[in-house]
Formats: sequence, C-alpha cells, structure tokens
Amino acid sequence: MPSQCVSKQTLQRLPTYLDYLKRQGTDPPKNISATAIADALNMNHVVVRKDLASISTSGRPKVGYDRVNLIRELEEFLGYDNADDAILVGAGKLGRALLSYDGFLQYGLNILAGFDTDPKAVNLEVGGKPILPMEKLEDLCERTRVRIGIITVPGDYAQAVCNLLIKSGILAVWNFANVHLDVPEGILVQNENMAVSLALLSNHLKERFSTK
Amino acid sequence: MPSQCVSKQTLQRLPTYLDYLKRQGTDPPKNISATAIADALNMNHVVVRKDLASISTSGRPKVGYDRVNLIRELEEFLGYDNADDAILVGAGKLGRALLSYDGFLQYGLNILAGFDTDPKAVNLEVGGKPILPMEKLEDLCERTRVRIGIITVPGDYAQAVCNLLIKSGILAVWNFANVHLDVPEGILVQNENMAVSLALLSNHLKERFSTK
Repeated sequence: MPSQCVSKQTLQRLPTYLDYLKRQGTDPPKNISATAIADALNMNHVVVRKDLASISTSGRPKVGYDRVNLIRELEEFLGYDNADDAILVGAGKLGRALLSYDGFLQYGLNILAGFDTDPKAVNLEVGGKPILPMEKLEDLCERTRVRIGIITVPGDYAQAVCNLLIKSGILAVWNFANVHLDVPEGILVQNENMAVSLALLSNHLKERFSTK
Repeated sequence: MPSQCVSKQTLQRLPTYLDYLKRQGTDPPKNISATAIADALNMNHVVVRKDLASISTSGRPKVGYDRVNLIRELEEFLGYDNADDAILVGAGKLGRALLSYDGFLQYGLNILAGFDTDPKAVNLEVGGKPILPMEKLEDLCERTRVRIGIITVPGDYAQAVCNLLIKSGILAVWNFANVHLDVPEGILVQNENMAVSLALLSNHLKERFSTK
C-alpha cells in the first residue's frame, strides 16, 4: 500500500479520476494509461501520473493501469468501504449547507447529526441528518465513538463548543469559526476560513492584471 | 511594498493578528514584537515572524512593529479599503451560506448578488444580498464590471453557468460544483471541494492513530 500522505491538491483530484474511470460506457477498455486519463480530462500528464502513483503501485509502463483495479484502489483510498463519522455543532446556514452537502460521501465521510441550542432548529432534519439538542451531544459521542467534530457556531461560542467536544472524546476539530481555538496537546485542529480561498483567487487575478 | 504573493496558510492567519492588534485595550503599547504576538496567541514564533515579514517591512530588531502602522499594513494587504466584488450563481443551501457569510469582509471581498433559476428563490434577500433571476446576470456584470464568479449550482449545470459567466466578462471562477470545468485560456478557475478539508483531517487522524 503506498503512503497515505497525499497533498490536498491530489486529494481534490482523485474523485475526478474515479468518476472518469467509471464512465467508460458499455465496453470499457481493460487497461488505461495516466496519459489517456489526462488527455480526456484536459489535464497535465505529469500531474495525473504523479497523483495515480501516489495511491497505486499497480501501473505498468506502456500498459498503464488495470481499470477495474485502479477503481478499487481509488475507492479504498477514499474510504468508500469504511466511512468516517463526524458530528457538527451549529445548524445555521453554513452548518445546514454542510449537513446537506453530498460531496462528503465521495471521500467516505459521513456527518451523523447536527447539534444546536435553538429550539426552532432542534428536531428538524437537514439533508437526512437530525438536528439534536446540545444535551444529547456527550451521550451520542460516547455511544458512537465519533472522533471528528465540526464547529459552525458564531465565533463567540466556538471555544466553549470546542471544550465540550473534547470533553466528549472528539480528537479532531474542523473549525469554521473565525477564531483561534486553544486545545490540549494531542487534539488536531483544522481551521477553515471560507473567505481565504476567495481571497486567494482575487489575489491571483490582481497579480495577473498587474503583470500585463 | 512587499510581494503580494503569500501562502494560503499565511493568508488564513493574517486576520487573527489584525484582530489581536486591535484588541489592545484603552492603553495599547506603541510597539509590539512578533514574539509577543506569538506568545499571546499561543503560536509558533517563527511562523508569526515570517507571516508579518511577508506583508510588512517596517519591523525593527529589538523594537518590533509600530502597532498602528502594522494594523494599517494588514488592513491594506487584506483589502479593507478596496473591496473586490463577486457574484454567485446557485442560491441553494451552500449558496445562501456564502451569501450570508460575514467572514468575506475580513478579506475585502463583497458578494454583490446571487442568481438562481428557481422562482421561489428569486427576489429573496439573503444576508442583505438580493437573489436575482438569471436573465439579469449579463446586464449586472456589464454595469458593475465584476470579475469574480462563484458557482454553487449542482454539477450538471456548472459548465453551462461557467460559460454564461465567461460570456458576461467574468475572469475568475470559484467553483463549488464537483465537476471539472472547461474554460478558455486566460480564465482562472479555483475548485473548492468542501469534502477535501474534512478528508485531510480524517487522514491526519488515521495517521496519528496508526503511528501510536
């Protein structure tokens, strides 16, 4: 098994390859090369070759990959057969968007439930996921042994929610609140700032204009 | 002026520094060092020093930064005085979450309006932004000369929306649909897959467990 450590960029492209490999019509080729995939997707040959090499060792020169085998390897890497569970706290607009986002399945990720303090939100279902009252959080974490918590509450509440998650056994936090979280050693925190990506794009655009 | 090219990680941390520098009470210090900021935020000294050096050249050894000056430099870099406009197509849950997300302002970004084909969504206001019918897209782009378009429609419609955006003068596309977009040369595309970040976190967690 190749290293599990791939870049974010590679991770982002893997479902595209998988999707393409599966859409090969009624008489699919037995073997397929990285170059052929790159051409079909209008992508850089070197990028595709490196991406596939990082998750599979079965490619052969001049032959390429066994298509069915590569599909299996991609699915295995992306965790299709072994979904990871997560819970989410804060069922506002962003929280609900994440609860109903169907892209997580592509990566073998499953949000079990959302939690909120708002009585109007509690007991609703969003994207087929229940929104539960905060009082049930600890119990659900204990029963399901879920290890990933997603924070989509306003910044002022984020640290308190983070503390509760850690107390409930959460080991990894995906933080959408724009505040710095203090956590004990051993707890993973990944900060997500939706604005940063848009800011990057806007910066790239400015650079391009300023060099012309 | 230092280079405008900073990493995504640095960009993500800049508002944290700015926020901290502004929260210095009624009698704030005139000068402040990268080390002091790092200590207060429980962050790595080297990281903070490099981040600040990438957007300011005014820091002096043993003295640090002039606080007011550093605030101004951060705000300028983040575009507080010169907001970039964008439009969004697809006012579903994710689109609405982005329309009402207040974090964009931190980066001098402003979504002017959302667009949708659904008559039930059209003419609603979300986060103070109007949702307009698709027929108005070209006209608004022409009048405002907006250059950034955000795609939050289902995958099947993304390419058609992208074509319309480009026809309307959009130069940079922030794509949330999980499909590969074909664009002419010169158009910037940044793909955003919400699941990738969660997948990364989940991978890190697995690595940590497997090495213990």
